[in-house]
Amino acid sequence: MTHPGLDDLFTLLRFPSVSTDPARRAETRACGSWLLNKLKGIGLSAELHETPGHPIVLARNTHKPGRKTVMIYGHYDVQPAEPLAEWRTPAFEPTVVGDRIMCRGATDNKGQLMAHLRGVEETLAAEGDLPVNLIFLFEGEEEIGSPNLKPFLQARAAELKCDLVAISDTGMVAEGKGTFTYGLRGIMCAEVTVKGPSIDLHSGIFGGAVMNPNKALARLAATLHDDEGRVAVAGFYDDVRPLQDWEREAWQGLGDSAGETQELTGVPALHGEVGFTDQERRWARPTAEINGIGGGYQGAGSKTVIPREAFMKLSFRLVPDQNPERVLEQVKAHLKKHTPPGVVLDLHDGHSGLPYVMDPHSKEGAAAQRALQQTFGGSVALIREGGSIPIVQAFKDVLGVDTLLLGLALPDCQAHAPNENFPLANYEAGVRLNKALLRELAAVV
Amino acid sequence: MTHPGLDDLFTLLRFPSVSTDPARRAETRACGSWLLNKLKGIGLSAELHETPGHPIVLARNTHKPGRKTVMIYGHYDVQPAEPLAEWRTPAFEPTVVGDRIMCRGATDNKGQLMAHLRGVEETLAAEGDLPVNLIFLFEGEEEIGSPNLKPFLQARAAELKCDLVAISDTGMVAEGKGTFTYGLRGIMCAEVTVKGPSIDLHSGIFGGAVMNPNKALARLAATLHDDEGRVAVAGFYDDVRPLQDWEREAWQGLGDSAGETQELTGVPALHGEVGFTDQERRWARPTAEINGIGGGYQGAGSKTVIPREAFMKLSFRLVPDQNPERVLEQVKAHLKKHTPPGVVLDLHDGHSGLPYVMDPHSKEGAAAQRALQQTFGGSVALIREGGSIPIVQAFKDVLGVDTLLLGLALPDCQAHAPNENFPLANYEAGVRLNKALLRELAAVV
Repeated sequence: MTHPGLDDLFTLLRFPSVSTDPARRAETRACGSWLLNKLKGIGLSAELHETPGHPIVLARNTHKPGRKTVMIYGHYDVQPAEPLAEWRTPAFEPTVVGDRIMCRGATDNKGQLMAHLRGVEETLAAEGDLPVNLIFLFEGEEEIGSPNLKPFLQARAAELKCDLVAISDTGMVAEGKGTFTYGLRGIMCAEVTVKGPSIDLHSGIFGGAVMNPNKALARLAATLHDDEGRVAVAGFYDDVRPLQDWEREAWQGLGDSAGETQELTGVPALHGEVGFTDQERRWARPTAEINGIGGGYQGAGSKTVIPREAFMKLSFRLVPDQNPERVLEQVKAHLKKHTPPGVVLDLHDGHSGLPYVMDPHSKEGAAAQRALQQTFGGSVALIREGGSIPIVQAFKDVLGVDTLLLGLALPDCQAHAPNENFPLANYEAGVRLNKALLRELAAVV
Repeated sequence: MTHPGLDDLFTLLRFPSVSTDPARRAETRACGSWLLNKLKGIGLSAELHETPGHPIVLARNTHKPGRKTVMIYGHYDVQPAEPLAEWRTPAFEPTVVGDRIMCRGATDNKGQLMAHLRGVEETLAAEGDLPVNLIFLFEGEEEIGSPNLKPFLQARAAELKCDLVAISDTGMVAEGKGTFTYGLRGIMCAEVTVKGPSIDLHSGIFGGAVMNPNKALARLAATLHDDEGRVAVAGFYDDVRPLQDWEREAWQGLGDSAGETQELTGVPALHGEVGFTDQERRWARPTAEINGIGGGYQGAGSKTVIPREAFMKLSFRLVPDQNPERVLEQVKAHLKKHTPPGVVLDLHDGHSGLPYVMDPHSKEGAAAQRALQQTFGGSVALIREGGSIPIVQAFKDVLGVDTLLLGLALPDCQAHAPNENFPLANYEAGVRLNKALLRELAAVV
């Protein structure tokens, strides 16, 4: 079996385009520039647009009146690859192991982005035109919350006017099972530091007489949840829209995912909010997570120190109709109220994004499901997903359009983790999906 | 003013003899070898003794019958210098700033060790002999709990037989105030890891369905204390000997140290066990401290990850008559009982040492106080100290002798912290103290 376009995908994967890392700024930009030239090479008109951060790459075919205008979004930036020691292949050298491409970004999102690009390349080569007016919009800041994309959309709303957006950056419920995602969780990130002594202290000399920032941080972090897995921040659930009956039934029809989640994660036991299934916990319930915690001595052996500060990096996954700004205020009030004596609290809010939900039974939703059915066969799973793509809400807010989420990632593709990978078969399915999707959307009246 | 012997002290300080760091093994050994040659050079017979860890340096004058035998203990290893960015002078290059020598180890313990060595050097040069039979015992593992010193004492108990031990490795209550320390806290260290998923997880995909090890660790850590600053481990206080009235009165006579502690530490407010003074909290009450905590993403920006594990490095300061082994069992039981669901607990115990107390009104205690009075003038403060010198208990157990603790460190010498320093005046006082001490001890009947 040949894998058309793999050379291009491998070239794209080799750029260590880690958007959160200032040291990778030039390489992230080079990744965008490479895409620009590739898009021009397949016959599209393409431009690289500067932003205060990493550039946005825009491309389009010759638009003609009377056709649907479809925007396909992707992102060329990736998560950090750390911890590097846990990779079995080099993090930024694509390596085929069995039927998978191993590389940071293979799934999220370069593999899926390139499948669409290759689909368009093949259609243009075979037919000289596409059935729709196409806009490719590829950004380099998705993994840091797309801070510059919404202003970009706002500034160019007229020229970016389209009928809908399509994105492949979500998951499939199982290998070979076409999956349509109609909802996403939002996110609100914050970094919390508690500061105590002005210098690191000897825990023998001063231990017992001052609040240890590590202790203060742990006690503060422990107030974020109650004993039944609920977030204990006052008002946190006020705006949560209850799950509808058809959703709960559709998900139950997919089978309980608890066993699969336990197998994929390797946890000794699942743990979550009392009263909800595994799918509901992951797709439709809000969370508070401590993504990083640190303070004091981190090296080998022991050091009897009381550190001057300790930190935690928090993220809150949000569901309709929670609002990140309101949750930020709730979290600030909670942390302020629960800060132990003897330390000072410092909070910096990070990126955020609204949760999203669309009607999967709309005309465009139905067309997307037909394209998935043609690509994969069998019935199509209707799901929400637990991750956050804040830009989906931005498309809704600024351009007034829904987003079709046609994911190609499998549950074991290890997005964001070491040994991220993407099946060769999913790359090829993605190429076919691109062709079917543009054809089906062109036919929607 | 000249500072006799400073060249030697500076040479000693330049060795980065960090005993806990395997990468510093050769340099720690080189530090011991330099001491060996220095001791030979001043006219003592000296030997370097191998241990499974860093070597022990032993030296003695010609012992004569009918004289007191005094062992002077010191250690040539130091704490890690991290965080290096906070040093205003190079961590391992002694630099005189004002009236202080800045360097890792300046106070703890190389400056104090060298004051004794210089005192002996000067007495030998001037008088050709010492008033006592002297044994210098310098080890290289004090900062990691002296794992090889007790076996060394046991193996050589006969040749190390002495009447008492003297150590300068404790603090003075104020500049110029001779201070006799008659008690020390013990210690018990342990490293705790909680393990959850087998790989780092995407907090969007799996958040809400698994226990986050960072959260589990924080919740576990938060169980270590109650809301009034007491350690909440069952049985922890069972063996704590109550403070005696004369001690509480002697310490009250020194004045409440709360203001000084707040100034030295720079904390926004003091915080400790309800019902005890600042001195009592630091010198005579047991503690539980989290010296290090870590898990998940530690870099710049955010990474939406659920890490596979998180750790904390614990140390417990112990007071008479607590026992480290019993406390370890209590802590293990506590942590096991309070481990949240969905993670597995892993505990490794580290170094430990018994707490120590002696009678400051003994003949030797009185002689030490006279030497301090002659060196510094004024009255001598009788205190306990919050730090741990496990070897003091080992001298008691193996050699059956008390230890005189004649500290030369000031509260702002920043032992164990960045910008550790030692006053030139205290170095010179230490040289005088060594001469007075040997003279006074020789006179004890």
